[in-house]
Amino acid sequence: MFRRQKAQSRDDLSTARMMAEIFSENRHIQCMLDFEAALARALVTAKIAPAKASSAIKLECEARLYDISRMVEAASGAGNLAIPLVKELTDKVAHKNAEAARFVHWGATSQDVVDSSLVLQLRRALDILGRGLDRLVQALRQLIQRHKSTVVAGRTWLQQAPPVTLGLKAAGWLDAVGRHRERLRSTRERALVLQFGGAVGTLAALGDRGPAVAAALAGELDLALPDIPWHTHRDRIGEVAATLGLLTGSLGKIARDITLMSQTEVAELAEPAAPGRGGSSTMPHKKNPVACAAVLAAAIRVPALVSTMLTAMVQEHERGLGGWQAEWQTLPQICMLTAGALDQLTYVLEGLRIAPRSMTHNLEITRGLIFSEAVAFALGKHVGKSRAHELVERACRRAVAESKHLRETLIEDAEIRAHINRKNLDLLFDPKTYLGSAGAMIDRVLKRNR
Amino acid sequence: MFRRQKAQSRDDLSTARMMAEIFSENRHIQCMLDFEAALARALVTAKIAPAKASSAIKLECEARLYDISRMVEAASGAGNLAIPLVKELTDKVAHKNAEAARFVHWGATSQDVVDSSLVLQLRRALDILGRGLDRLVQALRQLIQRHKSTVVAGRTWLQQAPPVTLGLKAAGWLDAVGRHRERLRSTRERALVLQFGGAVGTLAALGDRGPAVAAALAGELDLALPDIPWHTHRDRIGEVAATLGLLTGSLGKIARDITLMSQTEVAELAEPAAPGRGGSSTMPHKKNPVACAAVLAAAIRVPALVSTMLTAMVQEHERGLGGWQAEWQTLPQICMLTAGALDQLTYVLEGLRIAPRSMTHNLEITRGLIFSEAVAFALGKHVGKSRAHELVERACRRAVAESKHLRETLIEDAEIRAHINRKNLDLLFDPKTYLGSAGAMIDRVLKRNR
Amino acid sequence: MFRRQKAQSRDDLSTARMMAEIFSENRHIQCMLDFEAALARALVTAKIAPAKASSAIKLECEARLYDISRMVEAASGAGNLAIPLVKELTDKVAHKNAEAARFVHWGATSQDVVDSSLVLQLRRALDILGRGLDRLVQALRQLIQRHKSTVVAGRTWLQQAPPVTLGLKAAGWLDAVGRHRERLRSTRERALVLQFGGAVGTLAALGDRGPAVAAALAGELDLALPDIPWHTHRDRIGEVAATLGLLTGSLGKIARDITLMSQTEVAELAEPAAPGRGGSSTMPHKKNPVACAAVLAAAIRVPALVSTMLTAMVQEHERGLGGWQAEWQTLPQICMLTAGALDQLTYVLEGLRIAPRSMTHNLEITRGLIFSEAVAFALGKHVGKSRAHELVERACRRAVAESKHLRETLIEDAEIRAHINRKNLDLLFDPKTYLGSAGAMIDRVLKRNR
Amino acid sequence: MFRRQKAQSRDDLSTARMMAEIFSENRHIQCMLDFEAALARALVTAKIAPAKASSAIKLECEARLYDISRMVEAASGAGNLAIPLVKELTDKVAHKNAEAARFVHWGATSQDVVDSSLVLQLRRALDILGRGLDRLVQALRQLIQRHKSTVVAGRTWLQQAPPVTLGLKAAGWLDAVGRHRERLRSTRERALVLQFGGAVGTLAALGDRGPAVAAALAGELDLALPDIPWHTHRDRIGEVAATLGLLTGSLGKIARDITLMSQTEVAELAEPAAPGRGGSSTMPHKKNPVACAAVLAAAIRVPALVSTMLTAMVQEHERGLGGWQAEWQTLPQICMLTAGALDQLTYVLEGLRIAPRSMTHNLEITRGLIFSEAVAFALGKHVGKSRAHELVERACRRAVAESKHLRETLIEDAEIRAHINRKNLDLLFDPKTYLGSAGAMIDRVLKRNR
Repeated sequence: MFRRQKAQSRDDLSTARMMAEIFSENRHIQCMLDFEAALARALVTAKIAPAKASSAIKLECEARLYDISRMVEAASGAGNLAIPLVKELTDKVAHKNAEAARFVHWGATSQDVVDSSLVLQLRRALDILGRGLDRLVQALRQLIQRHKSTVVAGRTWLQQAPPVTLGLKAAGWLDAVGRHRERLRSTRERALVLQFGGAVGTLAALGDRGPAVAAALAGELDLALPDIPWHTHRDRIGEVAATLGLLTGSLGKIARDITLMSQTEVAELAEPAAPGRGGSSTMPHKKNPVACAAVLAAAIRVPALVSTMLTAMVQEHERGLGGWQAEWQTLPQICMLTAGALDQLTYVLEGLRIAPRSMTHNLEITRGLIFSEAVAFALGKHVGKSRAHELVERACRRAVAESKHLRETLIEDAEIRAHINRKNLDLLFDPKTYLGSAGAMIDRVLKRNR
Repeated sequence: MFRRQKAQSRDDLSTARMMAEIFSENRHIQCMLDFEAALARALVTAKIAPAKASSAIKLECEARLYDISRMVEAASGAGNLAIPLVKELTDKVAHKNAEAARFVHWGATSQDVVDSSLVLQLRRALDILGRGLDRLVQALRQLIQRHKSTVVAGRTWLQQAPPVTLGLKAAGWLDAVGRHRERLRSTRERALVLQFGGAVGTLAALGDRGPAVAAALAGELDLALPDIPWHTHRDRIGEVAATLGLLTGSLGKIARDITLMSQTEVAELAEPAAPGRGGSSTMPHKKNPVACAAVLAAAIRVPALVSTMLTAMVQEHERGLGGWQAEWQTLPQICMLTAGALDQLTYVLEGLRIAPRSMTHNLEITRGLIFSEAVAFALGKHVGKSRAHELVERACRRAVAESKHLRETLIEDAEIRAHINRKNLDLLFDPKTYLGSAGAMIDRVLKRNR
Repeated sequence: MFRRQKAQSRDDLSTARMMAEIFSENRHIQCMLDFEAALARALVTAKIAPAKASSAIKLECEARLYDISRMVEAASGAGNLAIPLVKELTDKVAHKNAEAARFVHWGATSQDVVDSSLVLQLRRALDILGRGLDRLVQALRQLIQRHKSTVVAGRTWLQQAPPVTLGLKAAGWLDAVGRHRERLRSTRERALVLQFGGAVGTLAALGDRGPAVAAALAGELDLALPDIPWHTHRDRIGEVAATLGLLTGSLGKIARDITLMSQTEVAELAEPAAPGRGGSSTMPHKKNPVACAAVLAAAIRVPALVSTMLTAMVQEHERGLGGWQAEWQTLPQICMLTAGALDQLTYVLEGLRIAPRSMTHNLEITRGLIFSEAVAFALGKHVGKSRAHELVERACRRAVAESKHLRETLIEDAEIRAHINRKNLDLLFDPKTYLGSAGAMIDRVLKRNR
Repeated sequence: MFRRQKAQSRDDLSTARMMAEIFSENRHIQCMLDFEAALARALVTAKIAPAKASSAIKLECEARLYDISRMVEAASGAGNLAIPLVKELTDKVAHKNAEAARFVHWGATSQDVVDSSLVLQLRRALDILGRGLDRLVQALRQLIQRHKSTVVAGRTWLQQAPPVTLGLKAAGWLDAVGRHRERLRSTRERALVLQFGGAVGTLAALGDRGPAVAAALAGELDLALPDIPWHTHRDRIGEVAATLGLLTGSLGKIARDITLMSQTEVAELAEPAAPGRGGSSTMPHKKNPVACAAVLAAAIRVPALVSTMLTAMVQEHERGLGGWQAEWQTLPQICMLTAGALDQLTYVLEGLRIAPRSMTHNLEITRGLIFSEAVAFALGKHVGKSRAHELVERACRRAVAESKHLRETLIEDAEIRAHINRKNLDLLFDPKTYLGSAGAMIDRVLKRNR
């Protein structure tokens, strides 16, 4: 009954797993240490610190040297993770080279470290999401190409409407996904900037050498240099959240369509089958759409998390209280939920099982009613749109009341018969003849999204 | 005590009032009628309808000809406002010209009308928000230029920290507002597209002439032509919501700063004073920051409305059920709240009252503690950062315990005195000497945002 | 095909319309004036004002005497609606009786008026919601009683599962609605309290007579007297929002079920049909579930509005800035959306069209697979649950692969046949025999919810 | 400067830590196993299974026997954690006693296990939150009792207003906390119910013995027995979320007040000081309110999570798809954030440092303006409220313009002097005389909340 879209293995998909690693405490601490190492080099470049200091500091900038759970514990009292980490780093460096220890974290404030680390993590996160989207695009392109002409009932308000093609449905999906790729690119560009301002954003501790150090540091980390620190201006971070929120919304829409078409009574699509997938603890016959459920769950959860990020933007003065802290777990969760949804949906689409026979069968169940618009338009050319609408509506009511095919109640109507003969009428009930510009639309979407 | 930023009148500000007009039922209906008139012309261009039909239809496309409250009433049963409106339009046209009535709404579905009307409304909305942002940019530029060197306490975690300048604070605000201008532009470009797909997005009723009519219609309305209809792909609409949500967050941040600086105990800033503004029904002395309160209220409300727009993205098949309807009032509310916040904040900034004497006074209340970082950095050059931090922390504790100025407890410490003499110490307590790169940052921000 | 639940008219339903009136500006102003009139009487009771003052004030406490749009205009500058209203009221009273004017608003602050007015409005709102719920309960009881034995496919994860009855489904709905009635009652009790504290909540302006006036005022308005004013303690108001949020969630769940069962391919239920309802501007055959769409839209919108109310709870000191203002439109919107959803769903349920034949037909489309659990349990008594699950799963797979009825593949399996003969097997495929405790559950729910 | 509320140790506070344990995967699995063991006993009670089966099953119902990370891995494909767990449990039991294995999970569906486990976890969660609230109540009572007469400036719209007492502020906090205790109790009562319905909620697999098993199972787990399963009726779960959301809002309000009063310029309160707490990586003098920041962060995050729970309520048919899954992490997060906020705030309040001298000092900074209401009321008795308001407003303006104390500009006004002599005027500027009913209110709040 179902034709398989293509063979694929779930194990290739690891956006979600990589995302979890990116936002692990270990990776966070490593990124903070990368910042400190880069700052030491920048201080050398700016002739503030001697070269030896930089290499001494670099030696201690390895996450594996730190007791992460102790750091996390200390963070709760200190206020953030950077404070105990910088202290420990300084101690480690001092233990070997007291002179070098002077330059650890020189000129920076803890939020510089935490935020820049977040940006480094986001860079990786956006990169893998971008690759994940590329893969989803390919899966959708294949689906569209294979099913450009596979006719399926259009549905509006969950009621059958005139036919579309599976290719057209998927082209709508692809069109949206393509825009998300574009948004991700411009968000990436705006978001990947250094955070470096010192205690209150003036870089006062560096005297007049603030700009030089900042430029060198941005260069070391390969991040853009902002015009001014952004400790309490969180629009860039908020934009990342919003962009992923929009993406997850579209993924949810696709999953909703698939689950609706997978209903027992519709049976046009099914998630890939695999041993142990989607079973029930009590019903031997069940194959539940568990991947789509995960996508839909993400689409329920992410919007609220985005609102948290927006609410948290109201941060006080030079560095806030409450708002910044509210971001810490929220943005990683958004990234992880988005990645999970992307993985799951790609898995579904790459292995999507398609039942063209069900699609054909479903086109029949209204006994022609879904072609009422086609008839009305054909008739409209003769009697005007309003009169045609009335005549066809009447025939529809009779078809329903008498359990007849619409074709029959139409032909029984003398006024209609006067304008359309049976042969032309039959043509109007052929779904292939009522697809309008579907093909042209598909071509445009495929052309733009490669 | 307070110096006034500049004279201005509240009456010039009308972003919010214009926004309310844009999203009025009257304007919505006019935009829908504009769509129908443009469609009629496009049908003529595509040689489907005769030129006369178009002019007959155009005659009836004036909102003032319709009983709006009756339309709204009928919409609740019909499912949307376009259905009764198109019916009424058709009747009106038919009354004068039965032939022309055939072509009313030809090939379109009601969502085509509603969505395209929304896009036309959004075009105006984004235009006036853009102009509003331009004006806010100018108010901020003036504030920055006048107060580039006005020193004020930096504040982190609501605690005083080393000094900044009022110009730097405002430059941070401007920097964010500048990015929102940019975002608004790219959102505008993506969002202003025609909706036109017919019942299920295939334009089937137009046979093979769908693309020609669509192109002509897009031209008539001066909207971009999408590759495919977007009835259930709401990312563009969601992006408008998200972009305004981000903007409102930044406006809220600025308002929060101003209200905190306007507290009785801080008294550095005040909203413009005007008869009848911010009074109390019972306390004769009160001048409440009512404009900022409105901005903050918007910053509390908009994030949740954005989440509604994202949640609503999960729309079914070719046209959804519930999600689309959830957008109808939500997006206009976001636009109106954003416009209101923009107006209120611009009003505040254009007339902001500034008390430099309070700022100077407040820099003194910690008895030198806010310069502890400056001292620690100066001392760090001699004894290393960690030792310097310890020594200064100790002196800070003594200063607090003995209610002395930090300068005194520092100079009493032999180890410190060994490295810094009293004259150099005094210099460290001059706020002007500890502003780091503030000036350079301000210049960069001013240069980028004109 | 569809049997109609019962005749009803949409015009009886007016919860939403009454709610709109309750939260109109006119009613809000009247409630504020009611507060002022009651306060004047309370001042008389407490022997602070002469009886004449109270009657002079009462005369002016009619909303129709005020230019409401001018009040609303003035409110934006003043900070809230009470300030211009009290000013106007005082002027009106003074015009006739200068002595009485002294006592207008005596001891109160504007938030006392606004909040108490809100509570008076909420009292009416909760009352009509309660009556609305009572009516919904009756509609559900009827549906359950009529369809206690109407078998319909159970569905989990949108896949068919063993059978349930329509009565059981509706009993689940009723059970939830019953709890909402209970919650509404306890929320009502906690929420309907007087707000009266004066400028900062001490009633200082009344000297030592604060408690006496407060008690008299509470008595006049028939509101509970709180231990302490609650200007910035918004949990009672937030609880109203949350309770309605929970209710709307359940209404949304019911609407979702109905729309899914109304899909063309399922066709078990349909919204009441009426001329002009749920039509399409282009498809003559369409009957869209527009009432359920409104319910679902409310279920998408209200949760975010609830989060706004919770976010807004963080209000400063004795009276807040931003949070309070954020409530003003949000809570009325929640009430109106809830009322609208309640009306629409009651309309649907009172006129619900039911197609038992479709239900029977749908029970057949899996060719017996939905009875796999029944077979597995019967078999489990002989071979253990795990082995039974394996055997039946295998038979299911064969049934699917070979397009056979599960009954056939089961009987072809020797191991199964050894334990269950064909006659017993046939019994397992009779849906009536596999309804477990459905009847008992229905009875319990009906008993509790009258 | 600061007086310490009382000595306390942070280590006693462990609501958050206990909450993390309750919602650990380990505990979740143990609760699921507790359900399975209880079900086995219930089957024995109902004479479905032999006593031996129950003891054999119980032996394997220990979380430590299971490889939790393997279970979690398997859950993602299976759709939920119960499926692989039940499979593993069955295998373990079968390994020792094949007969007993038949009865594992008999009659239940995986959601029965997951939901009932959640309820068991929630029972512990609500218990420790209740105890946490009791402790917070005690901390607040102490604070109120000690500072019943400590006068502090009232503040509305972040502007000083007439005086209140610290005791009154804290009584407002306690009053709200007391209501949350009450809400928690009624929510607890409604929420702690068994989930047990089998595949579609009919308990069909148990034939006519469903009610007997369900009653026995509820007894075993000491949970209430619902009238009908609630697989897709999530209002009870949603109510838990909403109740905690309301509580967190109040905790956030208290934290906001404390942080505002802890501002450098206000300096009336401070969080407990401890080594390593609230320091800065760069500013030696900083003592940041890190505990309050955590509370405020929770108050920003929880509202959105509540909205997720409400949105997720729209679950399909007998068991949903997406909504249920969206709850899994969201509700535990709400519990953990609430517990964390409760811990942090209790820590702050138990060790709160209070500076009465700052409070007295701050009462002076408006040079008498905050007593304008007191003067207006006193004067109003002679000249009427409106005239008094005008006269005092004029005196306020002069006091501000000429930097004089309000007392001086009042006495210089002949009209005022005619009614109030200098001695009486001086009395009006004594904060102790203008506290109205504060004391009575405090007593009422203390009496109700023990």
